[in-house]
Amino acid sequence: MRVKDEIKQNAIIEATVALVNEIGFASSSVSKIAKRANVSPATIYIYYKNKDDLLVSTYIKIKTCLGEALMGDFDPSLPVHDTLMNAGAELFNYITKHRELFYFAEQFANSPYSDLVEKAQIEAAFQPLFELLQFGIDQKIIKDAPFELLLAHLYHPIFNLVNPRLNPHFKATQKNIDLAMSMAWDAIKL
Amino acid sequence: MRVKDEIKQNAIIEATVALVNEIGFASSSVSKIAKRANVSPATIYIYYKNKDDLLVSTYIKIKTCLGEALMGDFDPSLPVHDTLMNAGAELFNYITKHRELFYFAEQFANSPYSDLVEKAQIEAAFQPLFELLQFGIDQKIIKDAPFELLLAHLYHPIFNLVNPRLNPHFKATQKNIDLAMSMAWDAIKL
Repeated sequence: MRVKDEIKQNAIIEATVALVNEIGFASSSVSKIAKRANVSPATIYIYYKNKDDLLVSTYIKIKTCLGEALMGDFDPSLPVHDTLMNAGAELFNYITKHRELFYFAEQFANSPYSDLVEKAQIEAAFQPLFELLQFGIDQKIIKDAPFELLLAHLYHPIFNLVNPRLNPHFKATQKNIDLAMSMAWDAIKL
Repeated sequence: MRVKDEIKQNAIIEATVALVNEIGFASSSVSKIAKRANVSPATIYIYYKNKDDLLVSTYIKIKTCLGEALMGDFDPSLPVHDTLMNAGAELFNYITKHRELFYFAEQFANSPYSDLVEKAQIEAAFQPLFELLQFGIDQKIIKDAPFELLLAHLYHPIFNLVNPRLNPHFKATQKNIDLAMSMAWDAIKL
């Protein structure tokens, strides 16, 4: 992809996220998004079939980036515990730094648009995590539970805690982050 | 409140939930909600100041009912563990039975409308739960962590698991529910 294309595409995604967070999915039309991104609506239709495709692609892009942030410096020589805790710290970090993307993703995942996403596409980004969990199960380090149960206890509390809409009282101090991660570990360890 | 009023108000809330789940917040106008509830828009304005008030009141009503379902048959003679696990089972139950209300509440909590809610109003419904957690901390049964951390690990995984939009693979078998609750307990117990 040419650099100019990438800049345009990023501008479109940023505009989509900002506008949806401000005025919701229904009111965020392609023409409003184009205006916000400083491109013509025709430019958006070069990259995306329609508004649904734009929203779904934006969501998939955010989740894929999150998967890379979590598993990016995955070091197979570290103990399972350390890798999972590091990924948890990365998750705290990523969400705090990219609060706008996070709001969009949470709103999207809980909306009817979520039904349009090919879930396997997102799961692909988390493949190294699934492999690590399976290794931990095989080594009798973590509980022999379905992945979705392990992940719900390992990382989902973080999504809840760092969302000021859901948890206005939570303070993301190092002490509280460490405490949250050690509770997550207690939940999944054998 | 007269019975006729209560029937009308319930119809309005049901219509609000159904319409928002179908077409989203922005498109759900008071006149569309009135039509769906089979009342006149003027009737809605007897009970609610405006659309925002209607949406916020619907959310608060759902959360208050959830609090009552969770802590309804709260028996202070039972061990803390049993009461918290029973409430978890009730939560699975309530969400499975009232999926429409749950979808609305999750979508609402993750939308900008959430900023309009007086959080203390909802917390009041969960007061017995907070008192039980404090008792558990004082008795050195559960970890001395802020309530929001305990609750994020105790019940938030359930919200994630039972939402087919977020977790299409999860099967709510008794085995999986028991497993989820025992992981939640491991997370918070001292």
